[in-house]
Amino acid sequence: MTKKVLVLPGDGIGPEIVGQATRVLDALIENHGLDVSYESALVGGSSYDAHETPLTDEVLGQAKDADAILLGAVGGPKWEQYDISVRPEKALLKLRSELELFGNLRPAILYKQLADASSLKPELVADLDVLIVRELTGGIYFGQPRGIRTLDNGERQGYNTYVYSESEIERIAHVAFKAAMLRDKRVCSVDKANVLEATELWREVMDRVSKEYPEVELSHMYVDNAAMQLVRAPKQFDVMVTGNMFGDILSDCAAMLTGSIGMLPSASLDANGKGMYEPIHGSAPDIAGENKANPLATILSVSMMLRHSFGEGALADKIDQAVSTVLDQGYRTADIHTDGDKLVSTKEMGDAVLKAL
Amino acid sequence: MTKKVLVLPGDGIGPEIVGQATRVLDALIENHGLDVSYESALVGGSSYDAHETPLTDEVLGQAKDADAILLGAVGGPKWEQYDISVRPEKALLKLRSELELFGNLRPAILYKQLADASSLKPELVADLDVLIVRELTGGIYFGQPRGIRTLDNGERQGYNTYVYSESEIERIAHVAFKAAMLRDKRVCSVDKANVLEATELWREVMDRVSKEYPEVELSHMYVDNAAMQLVRAPKQFDVMVTGNMFGDILSDCAAMLTGSIGMLPSASLDANGKGMYEPIHGSAPDIAGENKANPLATILSVSMMLRHSFGEGALADKIDQAVSTVLDQGYRTADIHTDGDKLVSTKEMGDAVLKAL
Ligand SMILES: CC(C)[C@H](C(=O)O)[C@@H](O)C(=O)O
Ligand SMILES: CC(C)[C@H](C(=O)O)[C@@H](O)C(=O)O
Repeated sequence: MTKKVLVLPGDGIGPEIVGQATRVLDALIENHGLDVSYESALVGGSSYDAHETPLTDEVLGQAKDADAILLGAVGGPKWEQYDISVRPEKALLKLRSELELFGNLRPAILYKQLADASSLKPELVADLDVLIVRELTGGIYFGQPRGIRTLDNGERQGYNTYVYSESEIERIAHVAFKAAMLRDKRVCSVDKANVLEATELWREVMDRVSKEYPEVELSHMYVDNAAMQLVRAPKQFDVMVTGNMFGDILSDCAAMLTGSIGMLPSASLDANGKGMYEPIHGSAPDIAGENKANPLATILSVSMMLRHSFGEGALADKIDQAVSTVLDQGYRTADIHTDGDKLVSTKEMGDAVLKAL
Repeated sequence: MTKKVLVLPGDGIGPEIVGQATRVLDALIENHGLDVSYESALVGGSSYDAHETPLTDEVLGQAKDADAILLGAVGGPKWEQYDISVRPEKALLKLRSELELFGNLRPAILYKQLADASSLKPELVADLDVLIVRELTGGIYFGQPRGIRTLDNGERQGYNTYVYSESEIERIAHVAFKAAMLRDKRVCSVDKANVLEATELWREVMDRVSKEYPEVELSHMYVDNAAMQLVRAPKQFDVMVTGNMFGDILSDCAAMLTGSIGMLPSASLDANGKGMYEPIHGSAPDIAGENKANPLATILSVSMMLRHSFGEGALADKIDQAVSTVLDQGYRTADIHTDGDKLVSTKEMGDAVLKAL
C-alpha cells in the first residue's frame, strides 16, 4: 500500500530546505519504485499567521493519518512576542506528544570531508559517530503540575515537574539497546542519580532492561560529567541515552562538536516505527528566502525516514551515498564552505544530490 | 578580629591538595599579616566512615560559626553503594543549603601557559575568561515534592520539582550583574523559557533586575543553544547566569573547554560574603595518596576566599601571581604535563608556589 507522508515545511529556511528534500523524494518515487505519496501543510509561525494557532486540528489529524512526517524547522523572532501557548515551538511539542513520538534519535556524525569544520582538534573528532537517544514525550517537558503561582508572601514562583514512570523509561531503554545492537554495542545512560530521585529510578530501570541485551555494555554517567566528556573525548561514546531535558542539551552539544549542524538529521519515533523526521538545526530566519541554507540535513532526514519508517534501507543507503558523493565533489553551502570548495546555493546543492542519485 | 576558616579536606585527593593550600594560608598568616585561624574537620565519605553520616551536626555547627570554608573534594566508589541520603555528595548539598550559599561563582579561565591543554582549536579558546554564576540552593536540586511513588497501575514513578521564586532569582541576578560590573559588563542569562514556566519567570526577573544596572548588557539564551555556543565560540561570553541544574552542566562544560580542570577554583557565597571555596574537580580516587594531584585549583580557591570573604584583594593577587609564576617556570603536575615541562608532585607544586610567594 502506498505510504503517506505529511510534509511540514514550517518557517524561515524551512520551505527552501524541504523543497530540496521533496525533490529527492520525487526522484525516488519516479525512478526507484518508492511507493510514497505526500501532501504539505502549514506548521509553526506560518500556521499562526494563517490560523492563529501553530498547529490546527486539521493538520494534527493529517499527521496522525500519515505514516511519516517530514518537518523543516519552526520559529523566528516574529513570533517570540506571543504567549508561550501559541508559539511555533508549541506545534513541535504537541506533535511529539499527541503522536507519542517518544524515541528521538540524534546522530552526531562528522563527515570526513568536513573534518576541519569542528571547533575541536581534528584528532579528537575524526570519524566521530555518536548516537544520542533522547526521550521525547516525558520528563520535565510535559510533567504536571506546572505554571507560575503567587505565594502567601505575595511573590510569584515558577514551577515544573520532572517525572518519569518505569514504563516510559523501559521503552526508551529498548530503543537505545536496539540501536546499540546495530552499532558498537555500548550504551551510556546519562542521569543525575546523585541528586534527582526521578533519575535514580531511571538508572535502576536501565540496569534492568540491559539484562535483556547481554551483548550490550551499559555504563552510567552523571550529566555534568557527560557534558565534560563530550568536550574532552567525544569518541569514547557509541550510544548515549537520556531524558528529554538532558537530551536537549547534550544532543545540541554533541551536534556542535561536528561543527556542521547543517548536516545532521533526526528521527522521532513512536512504538510502531511511525516517525517525524527533521534536521536538528533551526529555522535560521536571518538567511530565510536567500537560497543559501544547507538542505543536506533535511535530505538526510528523508534517508532516516526510509530506513526507520519504511524499511527501505537500500534506498536510504542511496541517499547517504549521494550526499557523500557531493561532499567528495567539493560542493558546499555557505555554512560549511571553506577556501577551495565550490560554494553552492540551496537549490544547486539539491541539483548535485539529484545528479549523484 | 581574627577570621575563622573551617578546612574540610574530604575524600580521595582532598587531603593532599588541601594540605598544599593550607601551607599557602600559613605563609600568608606568618609573613603577610593575614589575620586568619583555621581548624580542620571530616566531611563526605571520611566522615561517613567515622560517624555513619557524611556531615555531623558538630561539623555543620563549625561551618556555621566559620567566616569561610575551604573544601577539598568528596566522594568515591567506596561510598556509592550507600543510600543517596548518606552519600558524600549529601554533605555538600546540606552545607550549601543550610548556610544559604546561593551564589556559585565558577570561572572558566584558560591560562596562556596551558593553551594547548584544551581540546578546542587554540584560536577559539586563547585567553578564555568566562564566569559562570550558578544559583546553588534552589531549583530542582532542592524542590519539593520529590521521591519515587507507586502509581495506581502498580508501576513506580520518580519525580522532582523545578521551582524558583522571584526573590531567589533576584538575588542571584544581583550577584551576576555585580560580577559583570567588575568585568566586561555583559551578562547572558540561560534558561529554557520556551518550554519551562519556571524559567519564564526567571527571564522576566532577569529583565527587571537588569534595569538597576544600565551599564550592563543583558542577553538571554536557551540552554541547548548555550551548550552549542560554548563549544562553537566560548569567547563570546563574559558572565553567564543560570539555575542550579543548568549551571551544573554548563559550568562543567565550560570548565572542560580549558582542558585543565585541575586549575579551576570556585566560590559559593551567601548574602553576606561568607563562602565555601573548593576546586571544581572531583576527589579522583584513582590517584588518591599518590602525591600526583594538582593542588593549584585548591590554592586558587584560597585566593577567591581572600578576595570574596575577607576583602584581601592584594593578598589574593599575590596568590594568583604566584600560580602564574610557577606555570611560567614550567612546573606541571601530571594532569597538565606535556613534553618539555617539569613534571612535579603535589608537594613539589606546593613548594614552588610558596617559593614564588
Ligand atoms: C524548540 C524546542 C521546544 C525544542 C526542544 O527543546 O525540544 C528544540 O530545542 C529541539 O531540541 O527540538
Ligand atoms: C556532587 C554534586 C552533588 C555536585 C552538584 O551537582 O552540584 C557537583 O557536581 C558540583 O557541581 O558541585
